[in-house]
This record gives sequence, C-alpha cells and structure tokens, in this order.
Amino acid sequence: MGVVKGSVMEVAIVQDRLMGLGELDPAYQDRGLYFGDGVYEVLRSYKGRLFALDEHMARFARSVEAIGIEGVDMAFVRSQVLKAFHASGLEDAKIYFHVTRGWGPRELFGPKINGPNFLLTVNSLEDASSQKERGIKVCTYPDLRWRRCDIKSLNLLPNVMARRDAIGKGCQEAILVDSNGLITEGAASAFFAVFDSPTGQYYLQTAPLSANILPSVTRLYMIRAAKELGIEVVERQFSPDQAKYARELIMAVTTKDLVPVVGFDGHRIGDGAPGHVTIRLARQFLRFTMHKT
Amino acid sequence: MGVVKGSVMEVAIVQDRLMGLGELDPAYQDRGLYFGDGVYEVLRSYKGRLFALDEHMARFARSVEAIGIEGVDMAFVRSQVLKAFHASGLEDAKIYFHVTRGWGPRELFGPKINGPNFLLTVNSLEDASSQKERGIKVCTYPDLRWRRCDIKSLNLLPNVMARRDAIGKGCQEAILVDSNGLITEGAASAFFAVFDSPTGQYYLQTAPLSANILPSVTRLYMIRAAKELGIEVVERQFSPDQAKYARELIMAVTTKDLVPVVGFDGHRIGDGAPGHVTIRLARQFLRFTMHKT
Repeated sequence: MGVVKGSVMEVAIVQDRLMGLGELDPAYQDRGLYFGDGVYEVLRSYKGRLFALDEHMARFARSVEAIGIEGVDMAFVRSQVLKAFHASGLEDAKIYFHVTRGWGPRELFGPKINGPNFLLTVNSLEDASSQKERGIKVCTYPDLRWRRCDIKSLNLLPNVMARRDAIGKGCQEAILVDSNGLITEGAASAFFAVFDSPTGQYYLQTAPLSANILPSVTRLYMIRAAKELGIEVVERQFSPDQAKYARELIMAVTTKDLVPVVGFDGHRIGDGAPGHVTIRLARQFLRFTMHKT
Repeated sequence: MGVVKGSVMEVAIVQDRLMGLGELDPAYQDRGLYFGDGVYEVLRSYKGRLFALDEHMARFARSVEAIGIEGVDMAFVRSQVLKAFHASGLEDAKIYFHVTRGWGPRELFGPKINGPNFLLTVNSLEDASSQKERGIKVCTYPDLRWRRCDIKSLNLLPNVMARRDAIGKGCQEAILVDSNGLITEGAASAFFAVFDSPTGQYYLQTAPLSANILPSVTRLYMIRAAKELGIEVVERQFSPDQAKYARELIMAVTTKDLVPVVGFDGHRIGDGAPGHVTIRLARQFLRFTMHKT
C-alpha cells in the first residue's frame, strides 16, 4: 500500500471531487439523506389564504412524535411557514417542509446526532385545471410500502417506484393495492369511488384510516363535503375490479384537491369525462378553502 | 395580504434562514433527502485490503437496476471507491457510498431530474473487539419494513426506529420479526443461530433470501465458512422462542463481521459468553479476509 504512518485521513467524495471528511458540507450528512429519518408536510394556499394549516400542523406534530424526533418546536415551525408564505407573496403557493433528526456520523442511531434540521420551500402551484377538466388515468401497482404509512415520513421510494411505473404506462397516478387485493391509496393521494347503491342513490367510498394509509387532510375535507351534500360515505376498502365499474373515481391531493379519474387500468370510467358527483364535491370543497384559514 | 403585483418569488428556509429558492444548495434538493430515492453500499478493508469489493459492486449494480436509476457508470463508482480508499491511507477503513436519482423540484417522478448524484465517505473503523469478546444483547421488534428489503435502499426509517427502541432497552441491535412471528434479520445485520441437532451434532440456521431480507455479503461468507468447517447450514426462518433456546446466536455485519449474541430479549444465551462454534466460524471468516481482495 505504501502508506506512510501518520498520513491517514478520513475522506469523502461528492460526485468525483475528493476532500477531507471535515470539508464535507453537513447537508450531505443529514439523516434525512442517509436514512429518510424525517417527516414532512405539504400544504397550499388558495388566493392568498393558507388552507387547513391547523390540520397540517397537528398531523406534523403526530409524525414527529411517532418517530421520536426530539427538540422540534412546533411554534417555530408554524412561524417559519407563515414567514416564508408572506415573503413569497404568492397567491397560490405550495409549501413543503420537513424536519429530520439531524446530521452526524452515519450510524442507525447513536449519541452523535446534531439536530433537528428544518427545511422549507415555497413554490408557485402548478396549474391543475387541465387535469380537472379532462380527468386523469391511473394504474394499479402492488403496495410495497412499510407498515406505518400513517406517518408522513421521508421513506417514499416505493411511492416513487410506483409513480415511475405508472407514468411509463401513460398514467398520471399509481393506485396501490395491498396483499389482500384491496386498494389502499394513491402513491401521493387519497382515492375515492362513487358507487350506485341498490336504492337508486349513490355513495362515496374510500379506504378507512386503519388500512395503513395516511390521514389525508384532503380526504378529511372531501368526506365533510360529501356529508354537507347529503352523500353517504362508506369507509371500507374496495378492489380494483370494483373500481373499474364505479360510477365515478376521484383522486384527492393537497396540491390539486379533487381530480376526476376517467381511466383505471385501461378501463374507461363512466363516459370518460368528469362525473357530476365529482363536480358537486369539488364545488363544495372549494367553499371550504374560502372560509378556512 | 398587501401583495404588490410582480413582487412574488419562490423562497426557501434552511433552519430559520430565509432565501430565494434559487439560492438553495442542490444538496437540499436531493431526491435522496426528499424520498430516500437512492441505494447504497458499505464495505470495509482488513489491514489495508478491501474485502469482497466484487460482491459489493455486484449487489450495488442490482440495487441501482431494481429502482431504475439511469446513467450510473459502475466503473466510475468502483474507481471512486479505490481512489478514496487509497487517498485515506487507512488500514481498517469503512467505506460508505450511495447513488441517488439526482436532484430537482420535489415531485415523486418527472422529467426535471438532474442526476444521478454520487456520495462516498471513508471512515476509520470503530473497534469492535470489546463486542466480539463479550458478546452483545439484542431485542426483537416488529419488522415494519417495505416488501423489497432485497434492495439496499436509503429508506431506513423502520430500521432507525427499531434500533433506537433497542438501544433504549439496553440492547445493541434490534432483531426484526415478521407478521408470521418469524425472524427476518437485524436492523443492520444478518442473524444466525446454532442449534443442536437430534444426532448430537449442531447446525447453523438463518432466514432464506426469500424472506424479504438483504442478500448480505457477510451472510454469504458466513455460510461459506460454515461449509468449509463441515457445519450444516439450514436456510429457514426461526422464531424468537426458538432463538431463546439456541446453543449460540450470531450477528453478522460488514463492519464487524461476526459478533456473538449472548442476550436475546432478556434471556441469557448459552453460558453468557461467546460460544465455541462462533469462535470457530469467526476464525474461518478471518481467513477469507486475508485471501480475498
């Protein structure tokens, strides 16, 4: 080896650039990067008003508690959200933030953790009006995720893989199917079906929170919208075969609220255009965004 | 809101520091950080010689392929490993490296990905001799991980949570138990038991690769060591109750190779000291490290 005694040093490489380990930016030693050891939130504003901030903050606090990150000051986090949102001046903003357990030597858990670390970005929301007017197509994919999807964590590789696969098939979202053959939720969305009931009416169905899914804020408001419209809501999982013959299908996600689903695994849903129940729900949902802060 | 038209901007906050989004270092926009969208390896050297580099490179290539990261040049990665190892001058080095899909706007998958990104660190190996001489204690924990643990991905939060819980209970490693009540592997290690056979002999048992576990390189060499010593190897899962009454238990991990396990969920294993089968296997394992490069 030709090593001279005393010439040893710990080193790092970023891309192809060699440096002493001490020169490596702590951003590259974040436990979020090494382990996905963090939790996040995404919220948005409608016409200059943040929507459901309290619900997002409460869920974030639950996620932080669930993975046991210590030293997170929720008042600080909330104040940073408001500071960044106001500084951006954006009317329709997408706000992402996360907390990781911190940074330090790469070991699963140990005493040398400097943290927590906070990151936030405010982007202009992408226009979803085309997807809302025309509807989207979705494909199913096995739900390979971990067993704590109620925690909004940075461990999202199975979601990435499913979405990537779906896009490759010409779909806009991947709908995940568990080992019982039942739908849980989308890779980054909640999922709803409108079914005809034997009485000639219809009802809205979605997986219950017990089905290892995220307690989606949009899902919560969607259910409220249905109840305000007198539409029965059934929280029970359903299968892809049932979904194919639904009257309407709906994807729900913070950044786009309700998006009609007009294709499911290659089957046309309804007449291939957004259905009238979806349109009624979307109208009711929008009312919430105007009244809530 | 008092927003002046044209004054809008996308912004970011790191800790409490507000900046324009354009000023945010790409390290904070890495898909490894946002999604754990990357794969990694850890290898080590013994007395100035890298051990099992080929096996680690082959597994890395499989991981990259499995999650579909494009544009990774394996010859480049290998050359960076060698460059950094030689530059460090370390005799007993721990080499960590990962590739993420790259960086860009935070969306699960899309066209705006700049990548891949490569990171590598070389550390001096921590001394494991005390653990090897005295043995360690382990505790069991539900295996909450995703269903592709054969991929060595950056999605390691359940591993972190299990290890954190185990350390809180005075253990050094968490041993994961699946929904069938059978052991898969450790949070960051392979796991073996030595059981007595009805014929008065003993055999080595570990979970088969089909049990949603990592194809551990140390596991591979452990099995080779057993076969060279004429010890039968059974690749079949076993339960915590079986483990408690094993003759010997062994944790196997790249950075420490074989570590005797003398406590399992509060039960003393054997006479509470490293057993002679473990010692024989460790001696044989060390021979491999001297001959392989």
